[in-house]
Amino acid sequence: MKAKVYVTIKQNVLDPQGSAVEGALHSLGFEEVGKVRVGKFVELELQTADRGEAEARVKAMCEKLLANTVIEDYRYELE
Amino acid sequence: MKAKVYVTIKQNVLDPQGSAVEGALHSLGFEEVGKVRVGKFVELELQTADRGEAEARVKAMCEKLLANTVIEDYRYELE
Repeated sequence: MKAKVYVTIKQNVLDPQGSAVEGALHSLGFEEVGKVRVGKFVELELQTADRGEAEARVKAMCEKLLANTVIEDYRYELE
Repeated sequence: MKAKVYVTIKQNVLDPQGSAVEGALHSLGFEEVGKVRVGKFVELELQTADRGEAEARVKAMCEKLLANTVIEDYRYELE
């Protein structure tokens, strides 16, 4: 089974990397770009067949390691 | 319009960040985890209404700034 985890900075938290990308895109001539947020995308292979169990385990991985839940949100998909 | 860009390291390129996350997950007791790949996830707000034009512009942004096409792949969604 494969899991895709998306970790994004919470809406009310400053994202300096996003601001830097926004500035760089503007100076490259992409003036139509508004707010930019940069996050992480993690692909995991899982040796489990049980979907319910996999879901619980991926949630635990996010809480413990993949996301800093104080400033980041996460969501995941299993396939 | 909003664009979501996913930048991932190409399959045949080493991903040390992914290996580090894999090792960390194993030592936290998540032994079912196989290969891990870490990528970037960029959310952009675009001040354009024309979907076709937006698509071409996002592609150009990926090629010029968001992805290093030598070692990274990218895909994007517009919504």
